[in-house]
Amino acid sequence: MNDTASGRHMAAEVAQQPAVLAGLVQARSDIASVASRIAERPPRFALLAARGSSDHAAIYAKYLVEVLLGLPAGLVSPSTTTLYHAEQDLSDVLLISVSQSGGSYDLLEVTQTARARGALTVAVTNTPSSPLTEAAELSVDVRAGTENAVAATKTYSATLLALYLLVDAIRGGKGEHVADIGELAERTLADTEDDVARAVERYRFADRILTTARGYSFATALEGSLKLAETSYLSTRAYSGADLLHGPVAAVDTETAVLGVTSAGKGGAALLDVLDTVSQRGADVLCVGSAARSVPSAALTVPIAETAEEVAPILEVLPLQRLALGLALARGYDPDSPRGLRKVTRTR
Amino acid sequence: MNDTASGRHMAAEVAQQPAVLAGLVQARSDIASVASRIAERPPRFALLAARGSSDHAAIYAKYLVEVLLGLPAGLVSPSTTTLYHAEQDLSDVLLISVSQSGGSYDLLEVTQTARARGALTVAVTNTPSSPLTEAAELSVDVRAGTENAVAATKTYSATLLALYLLVDAIRGGKGEHVADIGELAERTLADTEDDVARAVERYRFADRILTTARGYSFATALEGSLKLAETSYLSTRAYSGADLLHGPVAAVDTETAVLGVTSAGKGGAALLDVLDTVSQRGADVLCVGSAARSVPSAALTVPIAETAEEVAPILEVLPLQRLALGLALARGYDPDSPRGLRKVTRTR
Repeated sequence: MNDTASGRHMAAEVAQQPAVLAGLVQARSDIASVASRIAERPPRFALLAARGSSDHAAIYAKYLVEVLLGLPAGLVSPSTTTLYHAEQDLSDVLLISVSQSGGSYDLLEVTQTARARGALTVAVTNTPSSPLTEAAELSVDVRAGTENAVAATKTYSATLLALYLLVDAIRGGKGEHVADIGELAERTLADTEDDVARAVERYRFADRILTTARGYSFATALEGSLKLAETSYLSTRAYSGADLLHGPVAAVDTETAVLGVTSAGKGGAALLDVLDTVSQRGADVLCVGSAARSVPSAALTVPIAETAEEVAPILEVLPLQRLALGLALARGYDPDSPRGLRKVTRTR
Repeated sequence: MNDTASGRHMAAEVAQQPAVLAGLVQARSDIASVASRIAERPPRFALLAARGSSDHAAIYAKYLVEVLLGLPAGLVSPSTTTLYHAEQDLSDVLLISVSQSGGSYDLLEVTQTARARGALTVAVTNTPSSPLTEAAELSVDVRAGTENAVAATKTYSATLLALYLLVDAIRGGKGEHVADIGELAERTLADTEDDVARAVERYRFADRILTTARGYSFATALEGSLKLAETSYLSTRAYSGADLLHGPVAAVDTETAVLGVTSAGKGGAALLDVLDTVSQRGADVLCVGSAARSVPSAALTVPIAETAEEVAPILEVLPLQRLALGLALARGYDPDSPRGLRKVTRTR
């Protein structure tokens, strides 16, 4: 293995996550003060704007906003602003723009436009001095430190935690469920090392991998799928467990590996039927999460420590990042600089 | 070709679309009266709830609502209601539930709950006497007639048209852009027959097909991808053109066929860069839409008649349905009853 294809940046950044998460919990009061500014102008509707990995964090946040805050929420289609110049009334709307770089032109335009149209705007970024932070009225720093690998890892988990801390603080919480998240992340990385190595072996020649989950963990299925696609060039796709049974299951056969994210809670429980169905169709089932061992049809399991269901995605993604890294290396690719990708993507 | 694998239901239903669409335009006044009920209680936010093909129609409607009505909008994650029992305040919210059968348990629960929580609820279905129609305060009948093939075709295009007519009527329009949509659909089916046959030839052995579009046409990319997956068991995936450049483009290579939906307008224009990028990476590019011929990198084009951009998706999908049908037959599958699928999917 030569140095350029060692994936050392990605490996290092995956390993930094316990410290990054613990540090962010320490800085909770900064996020809580943003939350109190939001609580002063209580929104009636939330919009989330993001691209790529940050979009998966936004989907996670959508569940948090709907369930924990009881607000209707939607994901922004940036093109309605950037291409079609929609003239929306956004008073009473909270817009949360999520971007590790804070440098995407389209999110910048969406945020500026939304602020001008009456929305309360919050930027969640890893770059406190970014144009997006300037454009938004409020901002949250995810404090992940510089990320050198093109594939986002620590900025993703830190963004999930920042969004959780923000939503939790808006409803008056003190972050109890994530008090020891750094420690749990450390344990998750240590505990899953052998299982991930086994999964790398098993899927070395896999061609078609579906990821699936329900509820909060759906974000993990999406992010795991993207990591596999961008580092190992696999043809992957993520489905909500419910959507998978509406059509796409027809394409599931003995050539398909299905990666199910099953943590303890309602989302994991609702996935059991789905995994049973794909398993009956001959798919090879890999389960990741705190309820992984409870799936009888799983060929391989990657169990992790149990947490409150709404914070499980912060941990679930860790072994999937390692799986993507391991598969990329096994296939001879350089996960630090995937062909054709740049760290900041300029789209309008 | 034996009778059971002839795809005769799907072929017949594809061919019925011009008449179905023309009939629905004739019934515009029914939809306009639903629209005036909505206009009496003007919503401030819109939510759309759907699964499968109907979810793609809902994504189309999200663009319509945002751009033509100037309202913020979001897609419902049914699990926040069905699994997590989120207690949302939905006053001032318009909930549009879209389901051809009107029989999905989860959409029923979402609609009942939303109505109880203050939303104005509208069911858009092909089954006027369905539980969903009963549950919603208002309803729109898409009038597509019985659909026998498992893969939705005429119910999809009719649902798009019904949603367009509804949104257009809410803003006081008279459906001018779709007055002759039946005729245009007839012409589209006739004009694209040879090009689709050529595409079936070319992609007979394709293994990896990505579909992509921006703006309104994104719904077409999603629906085209689902049709290919459910009838031909292809490993397909749809990306917004902008998202494709954020990561997934790394997996695009000379083994990839990229199906771009490019109609005249802002969405099609914004896709040119994306198609140029995938083409430089060696992908085989197929373009469908009224601006297909303006893509220099396309290996194959399926041009269709030009319309207002916001109604183009009603026509763009027609050749993609035929492509899915043709590829399924060429590969020896029965598109009328894909393995493992039922017409009504029961998920919670």
